[in-house]
Amino acid sequence: MTTVGVDIGGTKIAAGVVDEGGELLESTQWPTDPKSPEVIEDGIVSAVQNFARTHEIEAVGVAACGFVDADRSTVRFAGNVAWRDHPLGEILADRLDLPVVVENDANAAGWAEFQFGVGKDVSNMVMMTIGTGLGGAIIMNERLVRGAFGGAGEIGHMVAVPFGHYCGCGHEGCLEMYASGTALTRSARSREIAEPSFMSTIREYAGDRSKLQGQDVTRAAADGDEAALKLVRDLGYWIGRGAASLSAVLDPELIAIGGGVSRAGEVLLQPARRSFKENLFAMENRPLAPIVVSKFENDGGMIGAGDLARRD
Amino acid sequence: MTTVGVDIGGTKIAAGVVDEGGELLESTQWPTDPKSPEVIEDGIVSAVQNFARTHEIEAVGVAACGFVDADRSTVRFAGNVAWRDHPLGEILADRLDLPVVVENDANAAGWAEFQFGVGKDVSNMVMMTIGTGLGGAIIMNERLVRGAFGGAGEIGHMVAVPFGHYCGCGHEGCLEMYASGTALTRSARSREIAEPSFMSTIREYAGDRSKLQGQDVTRAAADGDEAALKLVRDLGYWIGRGAASLSAVLDPELIAIGGGVSRAGEVLLQPARRSFKENLFAMENRPLAPIVVSKFENDGGMIGAGDLARRD
Amino acid sequence: MTTVGVDIGGTKIAAGVVDEGGELLESTQWPTDPKSPEVIEDGIVSAVQNFARTHEIEAVGVAACGFVDADRSTVRFAGNVAWRDHPLGEILADRLDLPVVVENDANAAGWAEFQFGVGKDVSNMVMMTIGTGLGGAIIMNERLVRGAFGGAGEIGHMVAVPFGHYCGCGHEGCLEMYASGTALTRSARSREIAEPSFMSTIREYAGDRSKLQGQDVTRAAADGDEAALKLVRDLGYWIGRGAASLSAVLDPELIAIGGGVSRAGEVLLQPARRSFKENLFAMENRPLAPIVVSKFENDGGMIGAGDLARRD
Amino acid sequence: MTTVGVDIGGTKIAAGVVDEGGELLESTQWPTDPKSPEVIEDGIVSAVQNFARTHEIEAVGVAACGFVDADRSTVRFAGNVAWRDHPLGEILADRLDLPVVVENDANAAGWAEFQFGVGKDVSNMVMMTIGTGLGGAIIMNERLVRGAFGGAGEIGHMVAVPFGHYCGCGHEGCLEMYASGTALTRSARSREIAEPSFMSTIREYAGDRSKLQGQDVTRAAADGDEAALKLVRDLGYWIGRGAASLSAVLDPELIAIGGGVSRAGEVLLQPARRSFKENLFAMENRPLAPIVVSKFENDGGMIGAGDLARRD
Repeated sequence: MTTVGVDIGGTKIAAGVVDEGGELLESTQWPTDPKSPEVIEDGIVSAVQNFARTHEIEAVGVAACGFVDADRSTVRFAGNVAWRDHPLGEILADRLDLPVVVENDANAAGWAEFQFGVGKDVSNMVMMTIGTGLGGAIIMNERLVRGAFGGAGEIGHMVAVPFGHYCGCGHEGCLEMYASGTALTRSARSREIAEPSFMSTIREYAGDRSKLQGQDVTRAAADGDEAALKLVRDLGYWIGRGAASLSAVLDPELIAIGGGVSRAGEVLLQPARRSFKENLFAMENRPLAPIVVSKFENDGGMIGAGDLARRD
Repeated sequence: MTTVGVDIGGTKIAAGVVDEGGELLESTQWPTDPKSPEVIEDGIVSAVQNFARTHEIEAVGVAACGFVDADRSTVRFAGNVAWRDHPLGEILADRLDLPVVVENDANAAGWAEFQFGVGKDVSNMVMMTIGTGLGGAIIMNERLVRGAFGGAGEIGHMVAVPFGHYCGCGHEGCLEMYASGTALTRSARSREIAEPSFMSTIREYAGDRSKLQGQDVTRAAADGDEAALKLVRDLGYWIGRGAASLSAVLDPELIAIGGGVSRAGEVLLQPARRSFKENLFAMENRPLAPIVVSKFENDGGMIGAGDLARRD
Repeated sequence: MTTVGVDIGGTKIAAGVVDEGGELLESTQWPTDPKSPEVIEDGIVSAVQNFARTHEIEAVGVAACGFVDADRSTVRFAGNVAWRDHPLGEILADRLDLPVVVENDANAAGWAEFQFGVGKDVSNMVMMTIGTGLGGAIIMNERLVRGAFGGAGEIGHMVAVPFGHYCGCGHEGCLEMYASGTALTRSARSREIAEPSFMSTIREYAGDRSKLQGQDVTRAAADGDEAALKLVRDLGYWIGRGAASLSAVLDPELIAIGGGVSRAGEVLLQPARRSFKENLFAMENRPLAPIVVSKFENDGGMIGAGDLARRD
Repeated sequence: MTTVGVDIGGTKIAAGVVDEGGELLESTQWPTDPKSPEVIEDGIVSAVQNFARTHEIEAVGVAACGFVDADRSTVRFAGNVAWRDHPLGEILADRLDLPVVVENDANAAGWAEFQFGVGKDVSNMVMMTIGTGLGGAIIMNERLVRGAFGGAGEIGHMVAVPFGHYCGCGHEGCLEMYASGTALTRSARSREIAEPSFMSTIREYAGDRSKLQGQDVTRAAADGDEAALKLVRDLGYWIGRGAASLSAVLDPELIAIGGGVSRAGEVLLQPARRSFKENLFAMENRPLAPIVVSKFENDGGMIGAGDLARRD
C-alpha cells in the first residue's frame, strides 16, 4: 500500500513514493511555476503517472504552501502561488482518478515527524518550522489539529509584541517577525546600521552589507563571533518564548524544530531551551518538553503528505 | 445512566446529578476547606452517597481548580487548595467504589459548553473563562485537548507583553494580567491614582477608592460612564487580542466566553469582537468565528465533569 | 540690524532677510542639489549677496537638515544631503566675510517659535516637529538646549517600544516610528492589508492602495471617516505619549507642534492632548502645559536661524 | 562665604556647613518626622542656629524629597513627607532671617556633581540617581534645568514600556519600574517564583525568600553567581537604555550614576555602558558620553543645596 507525496513550495515541487513505514522509495523534483496552477497540476499528474508505472499507487497527498480549507482539497490562498479558493485536490483527483488529500505544508512536515520522526513515540507534540517565515504543526490526542477552517498551526501569527514589527500579514508584532530567518536577517542589517563597528566579522561573511543574510550570521556564530552569537541568542530567545506560549496553550510532550534555520544547531537550540525554561508557565510542576531538531530535512512535506493520504 | 459532577473551587464545592443530556437533576453545595484535602473528600463522598439513595450513579466526575495530571486523577498543584501531587481521583474511587475522573475546572466547563451549550454544534472551539484569572478550554477534533501532562488550556499564561505586568506565576506580561477581572480592578485603581478627576463616577460606585473593584467598573460602564467604558473597552481589546492569537494557533469555529466577567455582556463583547477582527491573522480569508457568552453560568464545571466521567 | 536666515532642506533651500522683530522682509527659494555641498554654498552666497544690495546684513544664520556640531559650524552628517563633517559655517563665513551660525533646522524652527511665535511669553518650552520624521527643539532657561555635541533635541529617537518598529537609524521602537507622518502612512498601509474592508474610504482618497499616504488619512479623517479617525487618534496617542515623556524630563510650560502633520489640526490635537493627560506624570500636581500648533508654517527655519545669527 | 545645606529624606535629615569650594566643614543628622512639617522645620532652624555660632552663614539651601515649585520655596507634594503646597522656603527664611532656596533632592545632588564632582569640567550633563526609585538631574548650558513648574528631571517617569509594570504614580511602564533598586528586588522575587532552581544562591544570601532584596542580588553578583549576574545585567540594560533616550533628547557630555544601587560598581556599569552603546542614536556620529559613578555618596544633597543657596 504505497502513496505519492507531493510538496509544492514557492520555488520547487518535489514528489515521491512513500510506503507505510514512511520510507521514500523514489522521488523527483522540478521548478514551480507560481503563476500557473495548471502547469503545477500538469507536473504533478505526470509525476504520479510515472511513479504508477513501477508502483501500485493508492492515493496522493499534497503538501501545499498555503491556507488549505477544512475540506482538505481547496487552497484558500497562498502567498507565493496564484491560488485563490482553488480546488486543487478535486482537480488532481479527477485527472488522476485517485483519492487526493491536500494539506498545508508545515502540517504535513509535522505529521511526518509525528509518525516517523522525532515524535513517533509521543501523542501530543508541536512542530515549529523556522525558515524565512515561522510555520507550525500541532498534533494533539494523536490527531493533526487543523481547526475549523483548516487554518490551525499558524503559530508565526500569534501576537507577540504590542506595537512590534510590521508583518507582511498587516499586523504588528507577529511572532514570525522575531522567530524566523527573516527576523535574523533584519536584525543583523539593523544592527549593522546602528553599530557597524560591532558587526565587522559578520560583514566579512556577507561580503556586501546590503546583502547580509541570516545565514551569514549563523555561520559567523558557528565560528564564535560575538556579535553573531548575540543575534542568534536573540533569535533563540524568541523561539523559546514562542514555545513557552504554545506550551501554556497545548502542553506538548515534545517540540520539534524544523526548517532551514534549525540547521544552525546547538548554537541556536541552547538559547532556545534556556528561554523556554525561563518563560514556561508552571515550569517546576511538569516535565520539561524537549526541544529537538526534526528528523526530516527536506522530505518531511512529501512523507507527511503521502501518509496523510491514506487517512481520513 | 447518570453521573455525579463535582466542582471544587477555592471557596465552595458544588455537586449535582447529571444525566446524559447534560441536565442537572439535583444539586447541592457547601464551603471548601482549602487547607484540608481530607475534609474536601469527606464532603464529596457524603454528597455522592446521598445522591445514590435516589439515583443510580455510574461514575463521578470532579472539576478541580488546579493542574490535573494526564492520568485524570492526580492534582499536581493548585493555587488555592492544599493539593500537591495529590491522588484525588484514586482516593475518591477507593472510597466510593465508583469510577472517578478528575479534570481541570476550566476544561470541564468548556466541555459542558461543547456538549450541551453554545458549542454543541461545532467540532472545534475554544472557551475563555474570565474571572479573577483567565482560564481556558480547547476542544479540537471533538476531543478535549489536555496536552501531554494535563496542562493544556492555560491560555492566561501565553506571553502577551514583553516586560509587561508581573503575574503571580512569576513571569512578566502573561495575557491573564490584561484579560481578566483582576486586570480590570488593577487598571481602574491605577487610573484612579494617575488621573482621579477622570474617575469620579466609578469612585462613587466603589464607595471607597481603596476598595474599587472590576465590577464597579462594569456597572458604571453599563450606565454609560465614559471612564468606565474606556476601561472595559481596554479589557475587551485584550480579550479579542488573545482570541486572535488562539485563532492563529487553533482556528476554532467558536469562541465561548465564560466566567463572572463575561456577565458584563455587550459592553465588553463588542470591543472584544472588534479587537478580534483587528488582530486576526488572515481575517478576510476565513469565516469569522463568533465570540459568544457561554450558556452555563456556574453549573458548567459540574455538568462538564459529570459528562467527562462517562468517557475515556 | 538685519540678518539673513537660510533653511536648507532635502529638496529646497529658502533664504530671507530677517529683522530684529522676527519679520521676514524679503525671501527667495530654489531647489537643493543634495549631492553637491559646493552648489548649495554657491546658491547661498549668491542669495546673501543679492539681499546685501538692498539691506544691511550683519550676519547669516543657516538651518541645516543634519546633525550640527557644538561649534555651530560643522555638519557632522545628514541623511539627505552629502555632508560628512562638513565645515559649512566656516566656508560660508569665508566666502561672505560675515559671521555665520549653523543650527539644526528643527532647533532653528523651535527658536523662532520661542522668540516670535507661540512660545514668545514662556521661558521653557519644547517643540515637536512632525513631518515625515519627528524632530524637536528644546528651550530651557530661555536658552536653546544643544547638548554637548550639538545633538540634543532628537526626540524622535527616544526609545518608545521594546522590540518595536525598525527605524532607519538602526534601532527598534524609536518614537519617530509611531509619531510621524511616515508612521501614519505605514499604519494605514498595514491596516489596508489586514482589514481592507475597514479601509474603503481612505482607499478612495488615495486612489491606489500602493500609493496610500498619511495625508490621505488626515483628509479622510477631516471628513469624518471612522477608519481614518482611528488612525489619526492612534497617531495623536503617540504624540501625547511622547509629550508626556518629554514633560517628565523637562517640564515645559508649552508644547508647540510643527511640521506638515500638525496641519491636520484639532482632529489630531484633541487625541494628542487626551493622551498627554493620560500619560503625564503627576498630572494633578502641576499646571497642564498647552499643546498648540506652531505659528510659522514653513518660515520658522529661516526666521529662527536669522535670529540665532545675532546671538552667541 | 559659607552656607548651610540641608537634605530632607524620608527617614533622616542631614545638615552641614558648605564652603564655596563644596567642602563640608561640619555636619549633623537626625531622624525625619514625616508627618509633621513643623517638627522638620524646628529641627532645621535649630541646626542652622547651632552652625551659626561658629560659622558665618549667608544662606540656606534645602534639598527636599518632593516636587519643588518654580519659586524654589514651595513643595507641591511629596511621596513620603506630609507636604502639600507647603511654603517650606518661606517659612524657614522667616524663622532664620536668611535667604533660603529649596530644591528637589535629586537636582541638588546632581548640582553637587556638576560643581564639585565628576561633572566639574563639563557644561552639559545628566545624573541618574538609582535608589529605591530613579531620580534625575539635568544640567544644560551650565544651568540646572528645573522646567517651568519645577518638575524637570523626573527621568524615572519617562514611559519606557507600553503596557509595562504598574508604577506607584498610576502609570504603566515608567522607566523607574525597570531601572531602580525596586525593579531589581521585584525581578528577583518574580524569578524566584518562576524558576526557583535557578535562584538558589541568591536565596541563600537573602536567608528568606520573602525578604529577598535587590542588595542580595548585587552581593551575589559580585561573587559571580550566574542568576544574580543575569538580573544585574538586565538592570544595567535598562539603565543604559534610559541613558540612551536621555542622550537623544539632551546629548550630555557625561552621565553620572548615583544612589545606593550605583555602589554595585562595574558589575552593573559594564552592562549599562554596553546597553547605552547599543541603544544610542547616531552612536558613531558623536563622542560617547562616559557613564561614571558619582563622587558624593550621601553628602551630594547637602553640598548641592548649600551651593545652590548662593545662586539665583
